[in-house]
Amino acid sequence: MTKKKAAILGSSGMIGQRFAQMLYDHPYFDVVALCASDRSNGRTLADVWKLSDVELCDELAGRRIQGTAVGDLAREGVEVVFSGLPSDVAGEVEDGCAEEGMAVFSNASSHRMDPDTPILVPEINHQHMEAIGIQRERRRKGGFVVNNANCSVTGLAVGLKPLVDAFGILDFNVATYQALSGAGYPGVPSVDIQGNILPYISKEEEKMNAEGRKILGSFGEGRFSNSPVSILASCTRVNVRDGHLEAVFAKGSDMPDESAVASAFEGFSSRPQELALPTAPEKPIIVRPEPDRPQPLLDSLAGSPDRARGMAVTVGRIRTSSDSLRFFLLVHNTIRGGAGGSVLNAELAHREGIL
Amino acid sequence: MTKKKAAILGSSGMIGQRFAQMLYDHPYFDVVALCASDRSNGRTLADVWKLSDVELCDELAGRRIQGTAVGDLAREGVEVVFSGLPSDVAGEVEDGCAEEGMAVFSNASSHRMDPDTPILVPEINHQHMEAIGIQRERRRKGGFVVNNANCSVTGLAVGLKPLVDAFGILDFNVATYQALSGAGYPGVPSVDIQGNILPYISKEEEKMNAEGRKILGSFGEGRFSNSPVSILASCTRVNVRDGHLEAVFAKGSDMPDESAVASAFEGFSSRPQELALPTAPEKPIIVRPEPDRPQPLLDSLAGSPDRARGMAVTVGRIRTSSDSLRFFLLVHNTIRGGAGGSVLNAELAHREGIL
Amino acid sequence: MTKKKAAILGSSGMIGQRFAQMLYDHPYFDVVALCASDRSNGRTLADVWKLSDVELCDELAGRRIQGTAVGDLAREGVEVVFSGLPSDVAGEVEDGCAEEGMAVFSNASSHRMDPDTPILVPEINHQHMEAIGIQRERRRKGGFVVNNANCSVTGLAVGLKPLVDAFGILDFNVATYQALSGAGYPGVPSVDIQGNILPYISKEEEKMNAEGRKILGSFGEGRFSNSPVSILASCTRVNVRDGHLEAVFAKGSDMPDESAVASAFEGFSSRPQELALPTAPEKPIIVRPEPDRPQPLLDSLAGSPDRARGMAVTVGRIRTSSDSLRFFLLVHNTIRGGAGGSVLNAELAHREGIL
Amino acid sequence: MTKKKAAILGSSGMIGQRFAQMLYDHPYFDVVALCASDRSNGRTLADVWKLSDVELCDELAGRRIQGTAVGDLAREGVEVVFSGLPSDVAGEVEDGCAEEGMAVFSNASSHRMDPDTPILVPEINHQHMEAIGIQRERRRKGGFVVNNANCSVTGLAVGLKPLVDAFGILDFNVATYQALSGAGYPGVPSVDIQGNILPYISKEEEKMNAEGRKILGSFGEGRFSNSPVSILASCTRVNVRDGHLEAVFAKGSDMPDESAVASAFEGFSSRPQELALPTAPEKPIIVRPEPDRPQPLLDSLAGSPDRARGMAVTVGRIRTSSDSLRFFLLVHNTIRGGAGGSVLNAELAHREGIL
Repeated sequence: MTKKKAAILGSSGMIGQRFAQMLYDHPYFDVVALCASDRSNGRTLADVWKLSDVELCDELAGRRIQGTAVGDLAREGVEVVFSGLPSDVAGEVEDGCAEEGMAVFSNASSHRMDPDTPILVPEINHQHMEAIGIQRERRRKGGFVVNNANCSVTGLAVGLKPLVDAFGILDFNVATYQALSGAGYPGVPSVDIQGNILPYISKEEEKMNAEGRKILGSFGEGRFSNSPVSILASCTRVNVRDGHLEAVFAKGSDMPDESAVASAFEGFSSRPQELALPTAPEKPIIVRPEPDRPQPLLDSLAGSPDRARGMAVTVGRIRTSSDSLRFFLLVHNTIRGGAGGSVLNAELAHREGIL
Repeated sequence: MTKKKAAILGSSGMIGQRFAQMLYDHPYFDVVALCASDRSNGRTLADVWKLSDVELCDELAGRRIQGTAVGDLAREGVEVVFSGLPSDVAGEVEDGCAEEGMAVFSNASSHRMDPDTPILVPEINHQHMEAIGIQRERRRKGGFVVNNANCSVTGLAVGLKPLVDAFGILDFNVATYQALSGAGYPGVPSVDIQGNILPYISKEEEKMNAEGRKILGSFGEGRFSNSPVSILASCTRVNVRDGHLEAVFAKGSDMPDESAVASAFEGFSSRPQELALPTAPEKPIIVRPEPDRPQPLLDSLAGSPDRARGMAVTVGRIRTSSDSLRFFLLVHNTIRGGAGGSVLNAELAHREGIL
Repeated sequence: MTKKKAAILGSSGMIGQRFAQMLYDHPYFDVVALCASDRSNGRTLADVWKLSDVELCDELAGRRIQGTAVGDLAREGVEVVFSGLPSDVAGEVEDGCAEEGMAVFSNASSHRMDPDTPILVPEINHQHMEAIGIQRERRRKGGFVVNNANCSVTGLAVGLKPLVDAFGILDFNVATYQALSGAGYPGVPSVDIQGNILPYISKEEEKMNAEGRKILGSFGEGRFSNSPVSILASCTRVNVRDGHLEAVFAKGSDMPDESAVASAFEGFSSRPQELALPTAPEKPIIVRPEPDRPQPLLDSLAGSPDRARGMAVTVGRIRTSSDSLRFFLLVHNTIRGGAGGSVLNAELAHREGIL
Repeated sequence: MTKKKAAILGSSGMIGQRFAQMLYDHPYFDVVALCASDRSNGRTLADVWKLSDVELCDELAGRRIQGTAVGDLAREGVEVVFSGLPSDVAGEVEDGCAEEGMAVFSNASSHRMDPDTPILVPEINHQHMEAIGIQRERRRKGGFVVNNANCSVTGLAVGLKPLVDAFGILDFNVATYQALSGAGYPGVPSVDIQGNILPYISKEEEKMNAEGRKILGSFGEGRFSNSPVSILASCTRVNVRDGHLEAVFAKGSDMPDESAVASAFEGFSSRPQELALPTAPEKPIIVRPEPDRPQPLLDSLAGSPDRARGMAVTVGRIRTSSDSLRFFLLVHNTIRGGAGGSVLNAELAHREGIL
């Protein structure tokens, strides 16, 4: 099988580096261009590498970063683009690629709320790919943009999906403990976070509700309809390298007991698992029975096959009463909640014949 | 005015050291004995000192720690005891002191749920001191035990009191971010917490509900009646030195708007402020208007008069909708939520003529 | 006594904030202008405050920051300038102030190696103030620039001075453990330093030798002569908030024993102590006898009178053999090694009649 | 080839866990017993696991820990013992195993200075295995003990060996930055090290000189002769998870230039490389050319083949003058400087026919 030619945008950033790592030796995609701003032009991946949890193999280390010129990518025959661009520049560049007929899988928030652009989390809403058809109609050459969700909401939405489906729970509070890598590079100054918690992340709480309702909603008759779910979040930054922890609370009547909740999590499986996509976790949700898990340090290991290399969401400490439910949830923010989300989306699109 | 002779139990621990710092040169109490386990017998306060946010002045530094012998304290004429003992040994020793006629102000949880022992947070429930009369009847020589609350619930209860009173809100979720000093010494191993969050603190979530309901409840006809308030907590340990941060969520109908909530917090004042007790904060609750406060590093300064030397609770990021309320709250866990709570209790008892 | 009108340059930075804190209510100087770049123009000190170890009192909190216009300062009658500017812009602005007749006390490195500009550490080389006379001749209106030393070399030079004088030791190796605040704000990205050590600080090792030789040298016949001392440094950044720790090694023959070294440190005193300058530590060097001190967390307390409010250098773990000497040294990098150094210099200049 | 039956002592500790990880699926050894104190008896490896940088695979996770009974090990036919015991109990238990004829490869310091027991670092002193013959004479059944070196000195000695051999440099100062895992579990309390440096590690500085001189010395005529090398160390604990960083200084005349030093490091190779032992790094010393390496976070990756899975020593920042040499060195303290050292020793012994 011939691999599709792919490019990575924002290669010098934290998400771009994850794309490079996850797409190395990928069965469907062949990365022919690592793009970044002109400042990084000519530098190698080794020069900018910031990931400490996986090895930068010698082969990747020497790859050169080039500037970001859409025309060049078109000339090189790039068909698939993975975008780790900052949201303030992503919109225009991604549109440029899509207009040239490329399929753009983006981590940026620029297009997430567009009416014909899905926020795709394949285990939840693979049906939303239908919107791509609508979007293609307005693009000149059949290109399109598909987004992965915000890092915090990705993990949360995966965790909420079986609760909404099995028990009809709709009303959630969530407090987050978000890792440093979620703020990119240079990100959070060390003097602000050392020995501290920052109880504010710009626009994050709003995104969690808005994106969560779109992701968990439906697509039909040419448009998205929001889910009635409500997500009230309080978001903080903590001095942890990778892995967003979330304390989830739900209220309601006739709440299921703890084993029913655990079973709903454990039994959850969807289209990526059916297709056995290369990056899909065997189980989207791992339930930890210990009294003190999940922990970012122990449960967001990028290199661990048994932890799905960062693509599974880990839950633990499920506690219920007749009218309440509490649990903790952990998502690797730059893998499942970032680059890995878009890689999975591209794999799904490829296998569903959309690329 | 003659000062009352006082002793500190558990002087070598984090709470005991706070007692020593806060009672130094106190207008009502004269610390004549620093007690700890035999292991610390003969050591100086300087030898065991772990507080990095306030100076150990030279005079305190040289004070010797002695063993814990109730008989010796009685012979020395000790009338008031401040207990920073670990809860597994506190109960018996504190009973011993009370049976010798001493007034015991304790940070330990041993007696908190006793039917004639108040968990006293003077701004909330100074009327609960009435229970002391009942308790004295069963003690031989008029001694008694009064507890301060668990560190996390102290801050929370102070924050909830004006909301319960002004708006009748009763249903709360809370996620905590609790500091290392709350686990005592040696406490949390560094390899467990460095770059990590621990989503579990033994018995903490249960205490928050049980103690909160007792504190916010009433005392009448010789017994305590719980408040109908519900506190569902998810507690974590974070790599912060001092200051427990809490994300508070409430649901209800006809929620007040943000300025009404802020006014209720700011206008809150009670008996300790009327009496201008030496350790009482001028305002029990400080409202921060900034978008990113309170922060443990900036808002739990033990040495800052403008921050009430750790005795005020700081709130911020108040967000409301018609049916929800969210805010963050910060309490200095070893001052307001620990030793300082008991010092304030003893000051109140003294001024109310109970000592 | 009328106070001199003073201005602070770089008020929004870590060093500028220390100047504001240390000059608050100062007996000699009255800060009439807090200057910074236009970006901070109109903001208050509270808006930019990053110091977590001392309180920003309400009076300072509301002070407004203005742009940096030398002409405005001259019109306001500013006589003394404290510069916390970054070194890449400091040179020109400081020259501008000096040409207008102001006395500039600077933390920036721009003029440190100028042939008529002292790097003043009053306990070591108060005689170097003689160079000011030379410098004034080339300035139009009698203004001048005096520098404090690099943060790491300040502490080291204070520690080396008694060893050079009493024992003739000249040959030193030093490994540093430098705090985050030394890199300014935003400074070191948290993802680079969390759980890590950075074994490189640009130009720092060269400065330690060059500045050390100038500071410990002499001034005579109109020029500086370097000391023959050799300082070979290896500098690292560590995840500590304030306080540079240094491991010092010396080789030589007939080394003094440990008590002789301790006595030389403890007996060290100089002109600032004679004059009892307001910011001078009672003892420039504090010797800690414990086996595990000095520690940044415990020995660089800005608010502690017994620790000289960050102005003393702390040494410990003195170990000697016949041909070797080892000890650890700690300096508060933004106080003694930064703003406090220049405040002390200005106090000395004032008392010596140079202002 | 039949594998030798092996046991791990101290399986619940940080070093014991490394042994378990490194010996999993090992070509020479088959771990049949995981021993620890009675407190851990019956627990699984998963219950005690503290390593966050490598996966605990499901197969290892379920392995049960048993008590430490030498007789049981003998009955089970254990021939090789890997000891991660604390030094205060190791001596006796290791003697017990050796007296039963077992070959003990130990990380404990108990027997390191024994006159017939080698501190083996195969790249440096594989000839020291000759001492095993002497030792066997006094043991009843041909058993023996071989030690790996202290974690800090292992890395240092590997780095010094080519400098001593090629250039005759003998006089070294070294300042260390030692990771938390070197203190075992629970190890360093978090409140002591968070935002701090501890400038003292009990007995560490003495060990570095004494062990370094033995390791770099010779064995002949039945006894060890120390190397004339001098290692003056100042040791600190830093808030880093894994990887001891060391700042090395040397004085002398006619020092080699930087490229000669780098060549000596890079060309270094010895017996383990000749034999291509399973755990031997391809190159014992990796030279990093970047201005800011080695860093613990980036250069002590247990899971990285290109970084020799923690078995190579990494050096960088080589700086020389005519009479001085400085560089930084990094060693993974629980791999090369701990369990991995003993695994390599056992592999060498096996291939040299001593087992």
